[in-house]
Amino acid sequence: MTDRKRGIASVRMADLSVQTGVSLPTIKYYLREGLLSPGRPVGRNEAEYDAAHVRRLKLVRTLVEYGGLSIAVIRELIAHLDDPDVSGGDLLGVALLTVTAQDDPPPGPDRDAAERIVDDLLRRRGWKDLDQHPMRRTLIGLVTSLTELGREDMLEVFDDYSVAAERVAEADLRVVGDPADRERALEIVVLGDTVLTALRRLAQAHGAPRK
Amino acid sequence: MTDRKRGIASVRMADLSVQTGVSLPTIKYYLREGLLSPGRPVGRNEAEYDAAHVRRLKLVRTLVEYGGLSIAVIRELIAHLDDPDVSGGDLLGVALLTVTAQDDPPPGPDRDAAERIVDDLLRRRGWKDLDQHPMRRTLIGLVTSLTELGREDMLEVFDDYSVAAERVAEADLRVVGDPADRERALEIVVLGDTVLTALRRLAQAHGAPRK
Repeated sequence: MTDRKRGIASVRMADLSVQTGVSLPTIKYYLREGLLSPGRPVGRNEAEYDAAHVRRLKLVRTLVEYGGLSIAVIRELIAHLDDPDVSGGDLLGVALLTVTAQDDPPPGPDRDAAERIVDDLLRRRGWKDLDQHPMRRTLIGLVTSLTELGREDMLEVFDDYSVAAERVAEADLRVVGDPADRERALEIVVLGDTVLTALRRLAQAHGAPRK
Repeated sequence: MTDRKRGIASVRMADLSVQTGVSLPTIKYYLREGLLSPGRPVGRNEAEYDAAHVRRLKLVRTLVEYGGLSIAVIRELIAHLDDPDVSGGDLLGVALLTVTAQDDPPPGPDRDAAERIVDDLLRRRGWKDLDQHPMRRTLIGLVTSLTELGREDMLEVFDDYSVAAERVAEADLRVVGDPADRERALEIVVLGDTVLTALRRLAQAHGAPRK
């Protein structure tokens, strides 16, 4: 069966399941949760799906399995992906949804000190115009918390971390290429977090003293 | 009031709340969920808490706010922290709980190719004896998924990522210091993920073309 408009084969839900390895109950769940758009109705209780559905279903499955994200967050990411008002460049911003951005920590000397520490770090790296970036606030909150836990000495890793983050971000932007391909940008930014965390754990295991 | 054995002040739940900024209902919730050990009973329906409770409560709050972790995962981390059979060095392993480790992807040419790609990467970096590491499996699964999504070209970032991960892991192991301090190791590994992700987003925002 061929969908003439798109020039690609249309399939029933059972075939969608075979082509993606996602079970029928899970496909139905994703449809209910709005992670997958409905198929084209053909007759009562039946619908046809096309190549775009196959691809989207693979993406959702990968985000569920490897993104470490809740269904609610994935639904929000997908909604932005399909929103014509979100530009490609905004996708980097959309991917912020996957990181906990907190309210400002309560004002006080600990927060003031944390703000100085974070802004000094950004200045040392020459990262500019990030005053309003939600991740600056997240870092300030984290530094405040570390101070409250008496772990100020852990801050000494931040410079190494930021050099590493810079190298990663350069590779990200190189491979994102045309930011108009929003799905691609989303995959790189979101799945990249998991790749980086997995590699960090492997590098730690390689470097840790063996027993 | 002084707890002679520990030589530190004991406080009631209301003071615990004041000292940590965590609300009473939230403290009760953490107690019910086993994230905070019960206080020492004094009279009916009352208990006293000590400095260890204050510290643990701050840690739980930080993990909830900035670790991006579910209560279930935090409960498991805390249980390992309090388990005398878990050695300090194992904490790096315990922190693996916070990363999605998946079952092996189904066998097939895509998985075989993914396995070769990951093992070649580990070999290029000289990271040894990691065949059984769960993060190797996670990476193989991720590479398989990227291949199914037609994103093989995204694999070109993996070398930059692994160099960056190495720099981060070296800083981690330096600052962990004595691995017998398990709480410290946990904080560095788990909160470090969030620090690194936040810095990656900032570096991307710095490097992305402005509109």
